[in-house]
Amino acid sequence: MELKEYLQSEATRIDAALDRFLPRESELPHSIHQAMRYSVFAGGKRVRPILMLAACRAVGGDSERVIPAACAIEMIHTYSLIHDDLPAMDNDDFRRGNPTCHKVFGEAIAILAGDALLTEAFRLISSPALMGGGAPEGVLAVIHEIATCAGSYGMVGGQVVDMESEGDDAIDLATVQYIHTHKTGALLKASVVAGALLGGATAAQLAAITRYGEAAGLAFQIADDILDIEGTTEQIGKDAGSDVARGKATYPLVLGLSAARVEAVAMMDEALRALEPFGAEAECLREIARFIVQRKS
Amino acid sequence: MELKEYLQSEATRIDAALDRFLPRESELPHSIHQAMRYSVFAGGKRVRPILMLAACRAVGGDSERVIPAACAIEMIHTYSLIHDDLPAMDNDDFRRGNPTCHKVFGEAIAILAGDALLTEAFRLISSPALMGGGAPEGVLAVIHEIATCAGSYGMVGGQVVDMESEGDDAIDLATVQYIHTHKTGALLKASVVAGALLGGATAAQLAAITRYGEAAGLAFQIADDILDIEGTTEQIGKDAGSDVARGKATYPLVLGLSAARVEAVAMMDEALRALEPFGAEAECLREIARFIVQRKS
Repeated sequence: MELKEYLQSEATRIDAALDRFLPRESELPHSIHQAMRYSVFAGGKRVRPILMLAACRAVGGDSERVIPAACAIEMIHTYSLIHDDLPAMDNDDFRRGNPTCHKVFGEAIAILAGDALLTEAFRLISSPALMGGGAPEGVLAVIHEIATCAGSYGMVGGQVVDMESEGDDAIDLATVQYIHTHKTGALLKASVVAGALLGGATAAQLAAITRYGEAAGLAFQIADDILDIEGTTEQIGKDAGSDVARGKATYPLVLGLSAARVEAVAMMDEALRALEPFGAEAECLREIARFIVQRKS
Repeated sequence: MELKEYLQSEATRIDAALDRFLPRESELPHSIHQAMRYSVFAGGKRVRPILMLAACRAVGGDSERVIPAACAIEMIHTYSLIHDDLPAMDNDDFRRGNPTCHKVFGEAIAILAGDALLTEAFRLISSPALMGGGAPEGVLAVIHEIATCAGSYGMVGGQVVDMESEGDDAIDLATVQYIHTHKTGALLKASVVAGALLGGATAAQLAAITRYGEAAGLAFQIADDILDIEGTTEQIGKDAGSDVARGKATYPLVLGLSAARVEAVAMMDEALRALEPFGAEAECLREIARFIVQRKS
């Protein structure tokens, strides 16, 4: 299967599961369930769930077992976007070409929809009806990994430093790295680690997948920074050049555009090297790493 | 031991554990860890953790094992207060007599501190280093119960309806009951259910403790509504009469003050009846139920 078709078919699989797991709009209170579904189905690429499925497959696991955790990670990613877009934070009116959650439902419901998606993620992963044959110890380890990478030591911490660095002229590479490895990198890493854990990885496999996740996560974010400069508003679904306009701490800002490109490719290579012990079963992970730095949207 | 001393000694035990588990202010990023600790240590009564410890004891469990989950439930309670106080929600400047989180740290950090506390709660409960002899199945069940009661089917759902009902003149008893059983009741119920689960409750014990939690939770909230009218601002640590001023859906508003008082006592009696199968080991739970409707702050 071609990469594009593979990514599309995995995204469709995730979307169907998200639709199954998310509360119906008909359930009370309607407004919050509408808002949760609105943001989850506002056109994400499902990068994190797809990475989780691919990591599970790479260690020889059955990717079907990972579906609830994969949906949970997408809910956490969506909650973080809803809260980041709020007027008190990035104050974004559009996301992926659609009006942001608070523009449609108001700030209060947007805050609560984010809270509910984060909570629902943990409800879903811990659901006794869904984990099937997954050993409880493994599920607990996955919850711990995801919570660690999503909280103040991970994604939330990255968002804090990102916000506090905005407009700072003296931003250095170490700060940009902190922001990237925490704000985006942590949850991307958690995705592959969770996939590997649920797939029954050995300690050596887990270590290799973790290295892959860290490098691919950083490559993803550098590529995102570059896209913000080079992409059109239509391609990236938000205002092109908005990072620059805001004085956001990015790799191109600190290193320059061409050095940032070199760094993205270097990270991709590092991600691929981490997969050397694996055979064909890790081909999806390899393809995704290449795609991450070559994508145009 | 007198009730007051018992509650104080349990609260001190919880505070010490919260101090141990929460990220240090010296850890990066400082601002969010300061904000998390500021709100957690802003003078809560620790009702939910104390209930969890008491429920564990009532079923014959070792309350020491429950400490991480008890701290987690207090973190979730605190996150909900931080977000409820935001300008887009209740827009409160004071809480427990102190400036609210967003007044001290700004809205963005307050939103993120709430997010981080909610995430940290699940990180803490799932921590492999902390659960000691707890069976992983039991811990997963606790996570599922807490997430169910905290999300859009529980606490968050209650907050949505509470907000949407504000100023509605035609509010009925069913709506007030929905708000109370969800916004406050759900997490209070989850506290005792988690304590019973971690304490190794039998199915019959769990059912009884659940009934207790539902009734005591409702009694607690009706008493809170009454206190808002009868208490002084100094006693309750926020503006007295603020529910009335806002047109909040409350029991006294719908039933009148004296019928609300009767209902609070009826709920307390129901909570006590649920404990009839238990002996002296449930005395703490009984005392708390009585305290809930008699407290003056």
